[in-house]
Amino acid sequence: MTVLVVGSVALDSVETPFGAAENVLGGSAVLFASAASLLTPVQLVGVIGSDYPVDKLQPLATRGVDLAGLEKVDGESFRWRARYRHDLNVAETLETRLGVFSHFRPKIPDQFKKAPFVFLGNIDPRLQMDVLRQVDSPKLVACDTMNFWIESRRADLVALLAKVHMITLNDAEARQLTEKANLVHAARWIMNQGPRYVIIKKGEHGAFMFTRESVFFAPAYPLEQIFDPTGAGDSFAGGFVGYLAKTGDLSDANMRRAVVYGSALGSFAVEKFSNERLMELTRAEVDKRVGEFRKLVAFDTEMPS
Amino acid sequence: MTVLVVGSVALDSVETPFGAAENVLGGSAVLFASAASLLTPVQLVGVIGSDYPVDKLQPLATRGVDLAGLEKVDGESFRWRARYRHDLNVAETLETRLGVFSHFRPKIPDQFKKAPFVFLGNIDPRLQMDVLRQVDSPKLVACDTMNFWIESRRADLVALLAKVHMITLNDAEARQLTEKANLVHAARWIMNQGPRYVIIKKGEHGAFMFTRESVFFAPAYPLEQIFDPTGAGDSFAGGFVGYLAKTGDLSDANMRRAVVYGSALGSFAVEKFSNERLMELTRAEVDKRVGEFRKLVAFDTEMPS
Repeated sequence: MTVLVVGSVALDSVETPFGAAENVLGGSAVLFASAASLLTPVQLVGVIGSDYPVDKLQPLATRGVDLAGLEKVDGESFRWRARYRHDLNVAETLETRLGVFSHFRPKIPDQFKKAPFVFLGNIDPRLQMDVLRQVDSPKLVACDTMNFWIESRRADLVALLAKVHMITLNDAEARQLTEKANLVHAARWIMNQGPRYVIIKKGEHGAFMFTRESVFFAPAYPLEQIFDPTGAGDSFAGGFVGYLAKTGDLSDANMRRAVVYGSALGSFAVEKFSNERLMELTRAEVDKRVGEFRKLVAFDTEMPS
Repeated sequence: MTVLVVGSVALDSVETPFGAAENVLGGSAVLFASAASLLTPVQLVGVIGSDYPVDKLQPLATRGVDLAGLEKVDGESFRWRARYRHDLNVAETLETRLGVFSHFRPKIPDQFKKAPFVFLGNIDPRLQMDVLRQVDSPKLVACDTMNFWIESRRADLVALLAKVHMITLNDAEARQLTEKANLVHAARWIMNQGPRYVIIKKGEHGAFMFTRESVFFAPAYPLEQIFDPTGAGDSFAGGFVGYLAKTGDLSDANMRRAVVYGSALGSFAVEKFSNERLMELTRAEVDKRVGEFRKLVAFDTEMPS
C-alpha cells in the first residue's frame, strides 16, 4: 500500500567530525521518502523554491516516489546549516533560512487523497491538521513533531493528537510535551490524548513503542561509525511506516517488526551524508540488518528445572 | 556453584527526589551479594569498622552469604553521602569518608580460595590483583572499576585486564579507559587487553555484552518509578555473575540469559533504598521479570514471501 508523506524538502549543509557536505538533499519528507520507498510506493507533498536542484530528486522518482505533490514556487528553498561536534546526539544549528517553506500550505493532489498510510512530518501542527482535512479516512495516520511546535503551538498539537493513530517523537520532546520525566508516564499521557501508538526515539539508545497493551523496545544498532546523524529520525519513521504500508498489517507482531525495520533504516541513514546511503541500499541489506537486530537481542528463557 | 565477592561494605546516606535514607547498608560487596545470593551461595570479603551495625547483615547470612571474610577492625566504617536530583543518572557525592576501608588489604579465607566464580568489586586494581594471587584458578573472574581508578591507577588496571575473563563498566568509564568514543571500538580495545567478555552498562539505557564472536544487548526495564539508583550496577553484576555461578554454564546462550538476570536484579534494586527490595525479593519475581524482558524485545522476522 501507498504512504503519503507531507513535510519539509530542504537543502542541508552539515559538518561533522568526519567531513562536511554542502547543499545536499534534506528535510523530513525527503529523508522519510528515501527510506520508505525501499519498501513501498510513496507520495510526497512539499514545497521547493526556484533554486532547488530538482534533478537530484530523480533517483527518488525512479524508486517509486510520486513527486506530483511537490510544489515549486518563486523564492529560495528551505536551507539548514548545522554542525555536530563529538557528541553526535546534539546538532548545533548554525543557520535556518525557511525561504518558501515559511508560506507552505500543503495541497494534497486528488490522486493522493485516498492514501491508506499518512505520515505528517515535522511541520506546524495547524498544517498537519489541515492535511488531515484533505485526505479520506486513512488506515493509519502518524505524525512527528519537535520542541519548537511543543513550545509555540501546544494547543494545536494536543488537538492534533486526538486525530492521529500514532506519534513519533524523541525522549526530550516526550518529556517536554507531557511534563513527565518518566517515559512510561509520558507515553500514557500521550495515549490519553488519542494516539494508540506512541513511539519514543532515544537516538543511539534505541526506541520504545508503547501501546495500551504492551511495550516494545528496539535498540539502536551498535555501529562502528556514525558519519552524520541528520535524518536518523525521519529514516526511522520511513522504515517503520513504510514497512507497515508494505505489509498492511497492524497486528502487534507486525508493528514490532516495523519498529525494527525503522531502526534498521535509521542505522543505515547515519552511515553517510544526506540520503546517500539510503539511496544505494538494497532490500536484501535491510533484511540482513533486521536479522542482526534479532541476534543482538535474542535470548531464551531458562528451561524449567 | 559459589561466587566470591571482594569489595566495599559501607554505610550510605542517600537523598533522592522521593525520600532520604541515613546510614543504610551499602558498598559494592553488599549490593552484589544481596542480588547474587538470591540465585547462588556467596562468599563475601570486605572490611568494616567498630561502628558497623553487623546485625543488619544477618538477613544476608540467612540467605546464604558466608561472612567469614568480613574483617572487623577498630575505626570508622566507610561512609558515603550522596544526593540525586531529577536526573537520576547522576549521583552528587556530598561526602566520602573511607575510614577503615582506606587500609583494606583483602585476606581471602582458606575455605574461600577455591571459589569457582570471583567478582572483584570496584576497589584499587592493585588490591584486585592481590585477590587473584590468593585464589586458585577460578572458572570465571569478573572485575568492576570506576573513573577514579582509571585516572589514578591506569597501568595497574590495564595489567589486571590481562588476568580477568570479564569486566563490567559503564559507558563513560569505557570511553575514559580506552579513549574511544565509539563503544564497539572501546569494547574491542578492552578485549585486546585480555577479557573475553566486556559488559558495558548504560544505566537506564540498558547494557551491552561484547565478545569476540557476538554482541548482545539487554534494555533496562521501563520502570514507572526509579526510587534510588544507588547500587544498580552492583546488583546487575550480582544477578549476572550469580546466574552464571548458579548454572555453571558459560555458553553464549546462557551468558545472554545471565545479562538479562543482571538487568532484572538491577531493575529491582532501584525500586527501594539500599538493598531493601533485593532482600524481600523472591526467585519467582525475578523469573517473572525476566519473562517481561523477553516480551519487551521479542519480535519475529518476516516469513519469506
